[in-house]
Amino acid sequence: MQSIEQYRSDFMTHMKDRFKIKEPVNLYEPISYILHLGGKRLRPVLTLMTTDIFGGDYKKALDASLAIEVFHNFSLVHDDIMDAAPLRRGKQTLHKKWDMNTGILSGDAMLIYSYQLLETYPAATYKKLMKLFSKTALEVCEGQQYDVDFENREDVSIPEYLIMIQNKTAVLVAAAMKMGAIIADESDDVQDLIYDFGINLGIAFQLQDDYLDAFGDPKSFGKQVGGDIIENKKTYLYLKALELGSPDQAQELEHLFSIKPKDATNKINTVKELFQETGAVSLTIKEIESYTDKAFNILEMLSIEPGKKEILRQFGTALMKRDV
Amino acid sequence: MQSIEQYRSDFMTHMKDRFKIKEPVNLYEPISYILHLGGKRLRPVLTLMTTDIFGGDYKKALDASLAIEVFHNFSLVHDDIMDAAPLRRGKQTLHKKWDMNTGILSGDAMLIYSYQLLETYPAATYKKLMKLFSKTALEVCEGQQYDVDFENREDVSIPEYLIMIQNKTAVLVAAAMKMGAIIADESDDVQDLIYDFGINLGIAFQLQDDYLDAFGDPKSFGKQVGGDIIENKKTYLYLKALELGSPDQAQELEHLFSIKPKDATNKINTVKELFQETGAVSLTIKEIESYTDKAFNILEMLSIEPGKKEILRQFGTALMKRDV
Repeated sequence: MQSIEQYRSDFMTHMKDRFKIKEPVNLYEPISYILHLGGKRLRPVLTLMTTDIFGGDYKKALDASLAIEVFHNFSLVHDDIMDAAPLRRGKQTLHKKWDMNTGILSGDAMLIYSYQLLETYPAATYKKLMKLFSKTALEVCEGQQYDVDFENREDVSIPEYLIMIQNKTAVLVAAAMKMGAIIADESDDVQDLIYDFGINLGIAFQLQDDYLDAFGDPKSFGKQVGGDIIENKKTYLYLKALELGSPDQAQELEHLFSIKPKDATNKINTVKELFQETGAVSLTIKEIESYTDKAFNILEMLSIEPGKKEILRQFGTALMKRDV
Repeated sequence: MQSIEQYRSDFMTHMKDRFKIKEPVNLYEPISYILHLGGKRLRPVLTLMTTDIFGGDYKKALDASLAIEVFHNFSLVHDDIMDAAPLRRGKQTLHKKWDMNTGILSGDAMLIYSYQLLETYPAATYKKLMKLFSKTALEVCEGQQYDVDFENREDVSIPEYLIMIQNKTAVLVAAAMKMGAIIADESDDVQDLIYDFGINLGIAFQLQDDYLDAFGDPKSFGKQVGGDIIENKKTYLYLKALELGSPDQAQELEHLFSIKPKDATNKINTVKELFQETGAVSLTIKEIESYTDKAFNILEMLSIEPGKKEILRQFGTALMKRDV
């Protein structure tokens, strides 16, 4: 087994070797820009690590890990257009640096390129990877659509919200790991188990993201704390506070989520107090633990060395602390 | 062999059976809208016809033909956003009927769905189809990028223009036919020949489109005659007229292609006269014939029954007359 740093560094080397800017440069230069914008490369690291854990040659998983990362970045490029977001990882978004049309077309090319990267696998493996990849990609689109739909709905339920984040975030984490298991030639049962591990870890990760957006340490979170509250985003905290709060609290919260004051300081503080007072915060923390535990329990069902389970457990724990 | 009408009708039935609107409906309803907007279904018909010609069961090619048509419509949806086009086949474009974000996201889902449609093929066939599909899809993106780039360039050469239309239009026609040959289990040589036939026919088709845009019969062309001239689009006719014309003629043409008068009648007439006087029109007609002939000569190299070659020749001829 390698260190996370080793996987990440091998991944970066592979990406630089594999992806070259070519003609038409106006199509491929923006792709290079977004791919090199940084990020923790968590998804490709998970693919390499999973292959390694199941006894496969993790270097054989490099193309699959790159496919996952290119797909992830494609979805960011198109989401950023849809959200009219000016910044990504502290730098200009692709459509801001170039223009919207470049964002659409370079994004399309990235989606196709991510498929193409899997062509190095033998036909049977290729088909397994591709089926998973297409299913996952469509689910990510569906998750994004639910997210857009929820903006205009006042009656989003918690189960609906969980389906949305499962599609938008968790399935790609799960697929990244399952691809590792496929490349390591593991049985369908093992593939399904590691997929379920990824789903639960991914949901915990997104719920934690909702929590940190309001209560995280501005230094380590990496995004503007309170951003979701400013944008009136219906996160798990918000939906749970509506559910648990008194009619008065719910009404106040709904009011606060219908305004966008210039100086949001008071709004953010009041909303955070309501999140606390309604019990939404403690329940969200409990829910994150519950999904993390579910993931760890699934690990127990895998017949791999305890040391390898420990590696996945540590990775999961570090992920929850945003410490990876 | 079946009639074109039969292929088209089987294709339509298959599309209705295979594609169903599901949740989230805001993602899938726009896809259904664009898929049922009409059109001649030329590409899927070519896939079915080619399979049949090579002795394959054309019904086995239905999923591949649908993949081609869904991909083609994906590219129309995203191109229409980039061109800010309000109409497609006389009806509202997807992003006009819904909004830009829906256009981006539904387009993405269509691209993924087109890949997914090929999953019904056995692993080895699947991989061959997918590799061709991805290569083609990326070329179409590159063609679109060249098209965008050319808008802001004054020095586009004829060879560059031909590469652009080959990527933007011809490769998909060629791939539609090659997929038929793959499904009919033809040799690589035959696959390459029918691909080349498609490339040449596709280029002839696009040059003919350029010609008809200026000189077509408004009744049968289906688009606004003179549309390219109004939009100052650098078509083959324009580039050839610049090349062949005197310095005065070239200057006048360049001036006319830098303005957008409210009433374009005079501009259209003057440009058409220049196209005629410079000899660009007769040369374009010759070039169309030359590509069509090249396609038909390739047919001669195929060892299939003369009757089947005749079917392809008739289809090509009808296509050039927009009579299919």
